[in-house]
Amino acid sequence: MRRYPLIVAIDETSCDKALFSLASSISPIVSGFKVGIPTLISCGLGFLKELRSAANGAFLIADLKLADIGDVMVKTTSLVKDYVDAVIAHAFVGREGALDALVDSIRKWDLKLILVASMSHAGSLEFYDADLDRVLGLVRELAPWGVVAPATRPEVIKRVRIELDGVKIVSPGVGAQGARPGDAICAGADYEIIGRAILGSKDPLGAAVQAGEAASRCQAQRL
Amino acid sequence: MRRYPLIVAIDETSCDKALFSLASSISPIVSGFKVGIPTLISCGLGFLKELRSAANGAFLIADLKLADIGDVMVKTTSLVKDYVDAVIAHAFVGREGALDALVDSIRKWDLKLILVASMSHAGSLEFYDADLDRVLGLVRELAPWGVVAPATRPEVIKRVRIELDGVKIVSPGVGAQGARPGDAICAGADYEIIGRAILGSKDPLGAAVQAGEAASRCQAQRL
Repeated sequence: MRRYPLIVAIDETSCDKALFSLASSISPIVSGFKVGIPTLISCGLGFLKELRSAANGAFLIADLKLADIGDVMVKTTSLVKDYVDAVIAHAFVGREGALDALVDSIRKWDLKLILVASMSHAGSLEFYDADLDRVLGLVRELAPWGVVAPATRPEVIKRVRIELDGVKIVSPGVGAQGARPGDAICAGADYEIIGRAILGSKDPLGAAVQAGEAASRCQAQRL
Repeated sequence: MRRYPLIVAIDETSCDKALFSLASSISPIVSGFKVGIPTLISCGLGFLKELRSAANGAFLIADLKLADIGDVMVKTTSLVKDYVDAVIAHAFVGREGALDALVDSIRKWDLKLILVASMSHAGSLEFYDADLDRVLGLVRELAPWGVVAPATRPEVIKRVRIELDGVKIVSPGVGAQGARPGDAICAGADYEIIGRAILGSKDPLGAAVQAGEAASRCQAQRL
């Protein structure tokens, strides 16, 4: 069966084992899972290990939102490298002494790097979007597997799609933050990140199918 | 006895109990400890609890380098709020939907906020320092307890000192990253962050005294 272009965001802090059976039930139809810092601090690295077995081949992203000097970002990534396929880092920390070192380690470990190019909240306009030209210039130089661009501002996704050929676009902001399922894919994204709208639903599988179908319709329109 | 204006950075991932007796031995003469994300993910929240007992009244900072939407930053901070005095967040995520929510929770929890205004590596020039005017404008609006400004670029510390009255300046980059103990305090910082030069020394107490004396001489010159 074909997987929907959805990535399920996990930010739980209860470390409840029920999450793994839930993840297991939706994993055949979604593309991946993204695990946030709150979960990693609360539940530790064992959580990623268990999620890996529940994920049925869906990819795993450690959403570390790395934003430090190179040494610290490399050290943090080294902790999760055996359990995930990709990590997320901020473009804003710049290249020299930061992302250059991270990119080297990421290549060595055969991981995928996803760089934040713009965020889903309004405050992203204050710095990130104001610097979007230079941010996209840095992304072009570093050639990561993917970038984060917000479902809440499709015009940013469109611009990233035009300017960065071949880079995957991963879009948060769907559901609780206001974007509708499909909005980001229609604008040119490759994956939509959905958290609460699936994991908080009474029928998570049904919610995933519904969001996935909306996203797939947009994919079809773009072909 | 008077405490030196030093904050000891802990980024260990071995979770070795020996660290607590080391921390205990230097805690009477330093101002605080700063615990990074690698340690928090590896060792969990129990580490902060134990460090608190070893700290002899020195303050504790969770160096979360928060850089996310408001909800996630608040959730992450809620995990550490009972064990630390302060958390570090990035200014570049902006106010609306991000730092505004964090500031509200930080006040409610009676914690101190430290905002990154500039970083110690060269890549900080690419975005952070290029936006320094606007970053300092945001810091002025949000009125945090402190800001991070780099010991490696004293001219940035001087500017922050002139433009932000009453805000504490906390400076990383001393030791392994190239700045000498005292450089940041001489330029106007309130605390210097030192990690490996103390924790990696054969005589951590002696190393702390030596760095502390250099910093104190600068404090005396400024009075």
